[in-house]
Amino acid sequence: MGNWQDIDRQSIVETRSRIDHMIHWTPMLRSSAINKLAGCQVFFKCENFQKVGAFKARGAANAVLKLSDSDRKNGVATHSSGNHAAALARAAAEAGIPAYIVMPANAPEIKKQAVKEYGGEIFECAPNLQAREERLKELVARYKAAFIPPYDHPDVIEGQATCAYEIFEEGLSLDVLMAPVGGGGLLSGTALASHYNAPGTAVIGAEPEGADDAKRSFVAGKRIPMESPDTIADGLLTSLGLINFEIISKYVTDILTVNDTEIIAAMRLIYERMKIVIEPSCAVPLAALLKNKSHFQGKEVGIILSGGNVDLTRLPFK
Amino acid sequence: MGNWQDIDRQSIVETRSRIDHMIHWTPMLRSSAINKLAGCQVFFKCENFQKVGAFKARGAANAVLKLSDSDRKNGVATHSSGNHAAALARAAAEAGIPAYIVMPANAPEIKKQAVKEYGGEIFECAPNLQAREERLKELVARYKAAFIPPYDHPDVIEGQATCAYEIFEEGLSLDVLMAPVGGGGLLSGTALASHYNAPGTAVIGAEPEGADDAKRSFVAGKRIPMESPDTIADGLLTSLGLINFEIISKYVTDILTVNDTEIIAAMRLIYERMKIVIEPSCAVPLAALLKNKSHFQGKEVGIILSGGNVDLTRLPFK
Repeated sequence: MGNWQDIDRQSIVETRSRIDHMIHWTPMLRSSAINKLAGCQVFFKCENFQKVGAFKARGAANAVLKLSDSDRKNGVATHSSGNHAAALARAAAEAGIPAYIVMPANAPEIKKQAVKEYGGEIFECAPNLQAREERLKELVARYKAAFIPPYDHPDVIEGQATCAYEIFEEGLSLDVLMAPVGGGGLLSGTALASHYNAPGTAVIGAEPEGADDAKRSFVAGKRIPMESPDTIADGLLTSLGLINFEIISKYVTDILTVNDTEIIAAMRLIYERMKIVIEPSCAVPLAALLKNKSHFQGKEVGIILSGGNVDLTRLPFK
Repeated sequence: MGNWQDIDRQSIVETRSRIDHMIHWTPMLRSSAINKLAGCQVFFKCENFQKVGAFKARGAANAVLKLSDSDRKNGVATHSSGNHAAALARAAAEAGIPAYIVMPANAPEIKKQAVKEYGGEIFECAPNLQAREERLKELVARYKAAFIPPYDHPDVIEGQATCAYEIFEEGLSLDVLMAPVGGGGLLSGTALASHYNAPGTAVIGAEPEGADDAKRSFVAGKRIPMESPDTIADGLLTSLGLINFEIISKYVTDILTVNDTEIIAAMRLIYERMKIVIEPSCAVPLAALLKNKSHFQGKEVGIILSGGNVDLTRLPFK
């Protein structure tokens, strides 16, 4: 584990190559119906098609592969509301080491199942950051496992940066690249990859109003943690990490917020028009784009669809 | 409109080129989780990503483009439970002519909306073949429109044949190619394309038990229409067409049937593992494959996912 300042153009190239055997180079999809509605050209990077169904496979793979042999031998541990948990369990399984996973008791069943399928061991806790951290501390002490946090970690961020790297590597020249922001792993990685590969592309974060600590922190210039986040976008309940905040403050152009009704409408549009399954968190950037159409008029806009692990028995469509 | 016997390798190539400006060359997707479960290599041809969300865009485009100027001028008419209706409305709109569409009153709302969006005029009828045909006859007489049936028509079948043609054109060498069968437009087109492009590939139809007239007709060697079809696969309620039956009898290897529980389980697998939206009819071939795993062991199997126009408020997942 290095410093985030060591992440640069070359390290992202090397990271993409390091994790290549563990992840997909995901496709970009487009929809003429959505382009017409949005008044711009939208390119969707489909991380819902990624291994474990989310971009988190990238960061977890990188973090596990970069552990020293001595750090790795007792396994890894983390706390996560879901996708990072499955991603770390899978990365650990591929490295032949155990994974100890702290999950909030109210995490979607499909996400718990995924962790179990990959052989991860789940430890439930109350759905708040303090409970998660205490339970994790206990596990790390008990098993002497290496803690791989879900977003606030240079190797995780470096892994997530490979997603935007793939977009630019395909030769796309975007005016704007949008990603959802929860803990900020994806957005900070996206911002670094864009800074080094496409400095002319503005990186914009999108966040639910009910968990808008990134927006408020961005505006205030200091981290303001979220106390009682409440949004349908269950992947974005966490507060912005420290390193993530530093990177986002430096390299992100703006953060836009939307409410749950707008998120559900954008989610439905993606299901109906693109015929793909996404989780609510994914729909936040498109919702933000549609809410602020005039800012994007005629532009080429990339949107990272972060994952597709949704409980199909509880889709929010009426 | 010619004879189906005139459809051959060259005519399918020409058809693909004729309709190229109106349709997508759809992608093939794979899932390692599904391969593992099925015990074979499955290649999914994603017609749910096709224009109007279904393979029907192909046949409708071809039929409209092949009309003579005099036949075309008064517009087109058809009866359809949904996808053909939208496809014909769109093809007519692109050709600048009206489309008169007879739909059963119980057709999914999303399919009715699609017809309206493309500018088609809907005439509702009772949900049975006789009512459809009478209402259609009335409209054809009133408007002097050209009747483009949903499946029992050489130009429609020739259009649907371009779907399998794309698979073989990409160089895939399949042991088996599976398609769902309702009226038989897709299956007969698939059988013809395979016959001319990949004679070593066995073409297998898949059908719901609650609408199994194709299976029974195939076994009996004569058409046995379905009287009260009942299945969740709403795209497959129609009985096999005459021309379709002739082609299927000659070029299809087998037809397998599955019940609605098996269809829903396969549908869920596709949503959860592949993260794509399909309609129940699409899941029938995968359900048939999983029910008859031993027949497919170690093989390379293509499955045509026929469409993705599903009512999201009524998904059958519990």
